[in-house]
Amino acid sequence: MIFLDSISDIIKFLIDFGKKNDIDFKKLVKMKEISDTIPELYVLGAGPGDPELITVKGYRILQKAKAVLYDNLANKDLLSLTPDGCEHIYVGKQPYGDYTPQEQIHQLIKHFAFNKGTVVRLKGGDPFIFGRGFEEVLFARENGIKTCFIPGITSMQASGLEDIPLTHRTISESVWIVTGTKKDGRLSADLQLAIQSKATVVIYMGMKKLDEIAQTYIEAGCGNMPAAIIQHASLPNQKSVRGMVKDLPELAESNQLTYPAIIIIGEVTNLSN
Amino acid sequence: MIFLDSISDIIKFLIDFGKKNDIDFKKLVKMKEISDTIPELYVLGAGPGDPELITVKGYRILQKAKAVLYDNLANKDLLSLTPDGCEHIYVGKQPYGDYTPQEQIHQLIKHFAFNKGTVVRLKGGDPFIFGRGFEEVLFARENGIKTCFIPGITSMQASGLEDIPLTHRTISESVWIVTGTKKDGRLSADLQLAIQSKATVVIYMGMKKLDEIAQTYIEAGCGNMPAAIIQHASLPNQKSVRGMVKDLPELAESNQLTYPAIIIIGEVTNLSN
Repeated sequence: MIFLDSISDIIKFLIDFGKKNDIDFKKLVKMKEISDTIPELYVLGAGPGDPELITVKGYRILQKAKAVLYDNLANKDLLSLTPDGCEHIYVGKQPYGDYTPQEQIHQLIKHFAFNKGTVVRLKGGDPFIFGRGFEEVLFARENGIKTCFIPGITSMQASGLEDIPLTHRTISESVWIVTGTKKDGRLSADLQLAIQSKATVVIYMGMKKLDEIAQTYIEAGCGNMPAAIIQHASLPNQKSVRGMVKDLPELAESNQLTYPAIIIIGEVTNLSN
Repeated sequence: MIFLDSISDIIKFLIDFGKKNDIDFKKLVKMKEISDTIPELYVLGAGPGDPELITVKGYRILQKAKAVLYDNLANKDLLSLTPDGCEHIYVGKQPYGDYTPQEQIHQLIKHFAFNKGTVVRLKGGDPFIFGRGFEEVLFARENGIKTCFIPGITSMQASGLEDIPLTHRTISESVWIVTGTKKDGRLSADLQLAIQSKATVVIYMGMKKLDEIAQTYIEAGCGNMPAAIIQHASLPNQKSVRGMVKDLPELAESNQLTYPAIIIIGEVTNLSN
């Protein structure tokens, strides 16, 4: 972490990064508010969907952003919090479709940090839970950009809005969060272990793997385990289904549930009945 | 969920609960703002410690609270958001010490909901992750009290402030959250399964189980796994240690780390080196 607590530090920092990055130092010094243009990156969790589920800190930081790079799942309403002149750049990934390559996002962070100052990387959920946020932090630091992380409510936490607590005394003593889509496209082998546990199992990005998930549970003799799918958790169009894990593919289809959604498997999905 | 969207619903609701609970209905009707005294319970996550890590929704709800029942880990500064006349009742649990029995908390919820209106149950972290929050929701509903859940940033999410992301591509493909203190006082058997996985393992309330945790990893041949302990995550007195899981008991002692803290085990604790 680079601390910039004093003016002398700031000047030294500017000289250093001017040299390193071959940018016009004089131009920077001339600018009215030097502090406004200190390159900094906030990797900020937007929460699960409802704009009110962003943190107070996140709300405050958006109000001083000079550029916001936002992804597909961050609520666009949050962009209205930014000041006049703030640039909004979409760098999202369509589910199973077009996306902005990570390297391009890195270059945009660098560009806006050095040209505008405070860059906010606004990510749906929590940037450090399946969000690749730390890769951006490491890149920024390597390039002399100050970084700050602000966590966000991740979508599984909105399952409470559907009366599904992630833990419940005597019912579930742990929570296992798995991604349905690994880098190599395979379902995580950890699911085999998770089935044997007393954990509430939460699967992110697993909607294209519903058949495989159901089959894995059936083969382990746990096809009757209660489960739920929640789509658009915390948004006005939130919808969900419940049933046995073996029936999830059929339930998703008949109720037209698609991405983005989370899959929750375990007795906690059955508590409100 | 009981919806109270219209005045007639409200009146009907009041008559019903007056009958059920044998309280003075006339007194209620006479009150200036009937809507102020509709018994409702917000089960609200205060976040990991930093008061700015509460959600915007939580912030807003505290501003209309008539009574707040708060626990040990909720930041007391948040109480200053409540309006004049709001009662603040401590119902916390000292680590391994005195605590308010759950049944007593339930009775306090009922008392304040019917006598004051909006009750906020302010819990450190997220109320539905090892927080027993759903038990309070179920109790309230059984007693005719409207309920609303507002998630909170749970302390493991503040590990990002110590440069520990919970997932990282190719390094960790899942996160397993375990409690170190089950109802029966035993360490969760799920830990044995977690060790075999590629998950980042996060242990809540495990500081008295450090020896047992280290031993479990050593016996599984994983004593050298990188690990970290973070105490008071997100607060000014945040501190942490890193090392191998086998050395955690010694590291905690020599660095005087105690409760409340989270234990994180996995390669993600080593990424910033």
